[in-house]
Amino acid sequence: MEDGSPWSRVESMRFSSRVDISEPNPIAKAEATAKTAGRPLGKLNDSNPTRHALAPDLVPDIYSADPRGQRYAREALAAFLDMQEIGHCSPDDLYILSSTSEAYSWLIKLLCDAGDAVLAPKPGYPLIESIARLECVDMIEYQQRFDGSWYIDVAELKTALEGPDGNRIRALVLINPNNPTGSYVKPSEREAIVRLCRDHDVAIIADEVFYDYDLEPFEGNARLAGERGALTFALDGFSKMLAAPHAKVGWIQVSGPAEDVAEAKRRLDVIADDYLPMSEIVAKQIPALLEAAPLQTARVQERVRGNLKALHAMLDADEQGLVSVLRAEGGWNVLLRVPSVLDENELVLHMIERHGVSGQPGYFFDMTSNGYLAISLLPEPDDFRHNVYVVIDTVNELIG
Amino acid sequence: MEDGSPWSRVESMRFSSRVDISEPNPIAKAEATAKTAGRPLGKLNDSNPTRHALAPDLVPDIYSADPRGQRYAREALAAFLDMQEIGHCSPDDLYILSSTSEAYSWLIKLLCDAGDAVLAPKPGYPLIESIARLECVDMIEYQQRFDGSWYIDVAELKTALEGPDGNRIRALVLINPNNPTGSYVKPSEREAIVRLCRDHDVAIIADEVFYDYDLEPFEGNARLAGERGALTFALDGFSKMLAAPHAKVGWIQVSGPAEDVAEAKRRLDVIADDYLPMSEIVAKQIPALLEAAPLQTARVQERVRGNLKALHAMLDADEQGLVSVLRAEGGWNVLLRVPSVLDENELVLHMIERHGVSGQPGYFFDMTSNGYLAISLLPEPDDFRHNVYVVIDTVNELIG
Repeated sequence: MEDGSPWSRVESMRFSSRVDISEPNPIAKAEATAKTAGRPLGKLNDSNPTRHALAPDLVPDIYSADPRGQRYAREALAAFLDMQEIGHCSPDDLYILSSTSEAYSWLIKLLCDAGDAVLAPKPGYPLIESIARLECVDMIEYQQRFDGSWYIDVAELKTALEGPDGNRIRALVLINPNNPTGSYVKPSEREAIVRLCRDHDVAIIADEVFYDYDLEPFEGNARLAGERGALTFALDGFSKMLAAPHAKVGWIQVSGPAEDVAEAKRRLDVIADDYLPMSEIVAKQIPALLEAAPLQTARVQERVRGNLKALHAMLDADEQGLVSVLRAEGGWNVLLRVPSVLDENELVLHMIERHGVSGQPGYFFDMTSNGYLAISLLPEPDDFRHNVYVVIDTVNELIG
Repeated sequence: MEDGSPWSRVESMRFSSRVDISEPNPIAKAEATAKTAGRPLGKLNDSNPTRHALAPDLVPDIYSADPRGQRYAREALAAFLDMQEIGHCSPDDLYILSSTSEAYSWLIKLLCDAGDAVLAPKPGYPLIESIARLECVDMIEYQQRFDGSWYIDVAELKTALEGPDGNRIRALVLINPNNPTGSYVKPSEREAIVRLCRDHDVAIIADEVFYDYDLEPFEGNARLAGERGALTFALDGFSKMLAAPHAKVGWIQVSGPAEDVAEAKRRLDVIADDYLPMSEIVAKQIPALLEAAPLQTARVQERVRGNLKALHAMLDADEQGLVSVLRAEGGWNVLLRVPSVLDENELVLHMIERHGVSGQPGYFFDMTSNGYLAISLLPEPDDFRHNVYVVIDTVNELIG
């Protein structure tokens, strides 16, 4: 690190003790030396059958067992990301795996010992809390607040990092845009958060799976992916980008101060090497899937924007006007506001009873007050309009 | 549990506190009731794009997001296993995932809190210890002992389970056959171990990926898969069965006392639901891959048996006779015995220097004494014979 840089600091990033990075033995050292010298070595105990002409006809390839994922797939992905991002993405900074859930698991293992904690946003989906708990780690929430649009209370983050739990907080999860609030991380928030994370040696986990689905024009928006001010792990995948959750392709892009990135990757390689999740059958499809991505994103984009427009029209047309929609900046879901006198469970149970339609009310996402329902903008237009009708009809019937 | 059964007991299996199995909310209950009644429910917030005609052409299927893996793939797998096993395998007892590594991770999460422990065999590959550590769990070793053939010291297991660490031991790993020792779990060992695990509420994790690769006739051999005497998770996959480590298909088969199995699956479903690792692109190939499995297993079987025969012939023909092979019952690897006066690192470094061939000596697997080298039986015959030659030549040169 250069002295006098605005980012210079004394401490270095702390990683968990879960990863065994003990000194390599003399044989591993000799193997590494040979590799560096470009001298190929045979291996007495090479148990990879695909290197011994034993692969089945259906999967005829030679398996490289690359912890970061097949090189050709990472190269295709890096080239694709280069077209999207400001700044260059190297295949060496990418880890391809099966889902962002798996990415969360690996990153929590990398960063947190048992009893450590990650900061994550509320309102939000409960998945992160569940995954953290599976890793013996606590999720501490920070609030996204709403005053006509959503914002992050950076002062609250600072208080958390400097409070009694501060020392066990090892990562800050940013969901950009957040789900179901649909709020992007704003440039001013970002600058403060990056500085805060760097000052406290806390890594950023930026979940950007919904990034491309902006619902209205937005000034100064940017992905966290590639952020260099603090150690940053940006997550994305085909689940949203391609509307293909069943492909099971996700990735981590590592960026930040060079020494932190190098140490993070050294340790992440050990984790990745234990699991090697990427199937050659899937990896081979990655280049073709990437080619299909822009059109797929545009197609889904059109669907969600069209449905949002229809939603506004239907709400405007409803004479009772008991249902409104919170302003959403991006993503596939929006939050409907219903009269807070309604019990949220009662509302949804009535929807089930009356219309055979279930839903997730605000308390599912830890909204701080009563009277919300999440609605997906994905359904085909007729189905979507029916869903909106179900909500309006049930609310009007319960209140009327 | 029936009273008076030979397996009756007071305590029930203890699971970890990592899995959130809190009471479902009223909405989830109503959804479950509707499902049981066969009444289809719409969902206001259904964010699965494949159910809204948005899946990409390259992966046109509708994603079922089944935590245990696609139903059609589990049915094909269950039918395949039924042909192999004694006793019936239900698709409901199978979890399809990306690797046995992932299976170990899920099972450790299911069974162990941070600081708990699993018993695992030594000599053995260090992967289990590494995965356990990533899950904040200790691996406690038990010894496989050699007196002309390998056996498990069941009395030692009992001592471990009843000793000071007994209470934190939540699982016993059996590798059947073990790697690199190649030793199967014998019928008498199995009976004692199952009883011991049941008495101590310890689950069995049976890694049977090498099961079909017996190297010599063996009496009374059986898979642990389907064992009903104690809660048992049997692991297998395409990595060895099909010589296809790059397909990334593994599975867990759950069996044991009915109440333990039901509770284990209830909790494993929560873990599986957080990750949903199985790609539709891979799952669709599973039926065809299963059809190819018997021929692939036979092909690899022929290779390893042929190489083992060649190994014996070469060792017999060597006049100095400094290298011998430990009797192996099954698997892809055998252990060569070299004079114990040789330093194991020095031996391998000489092999690298002289022949450009590296290897893993006994200390890699925690052999209790010096003088071993693992050798893979997979290489093509000429390559294999060259590897054997490299060992004999290097040993003779160092000793001679």
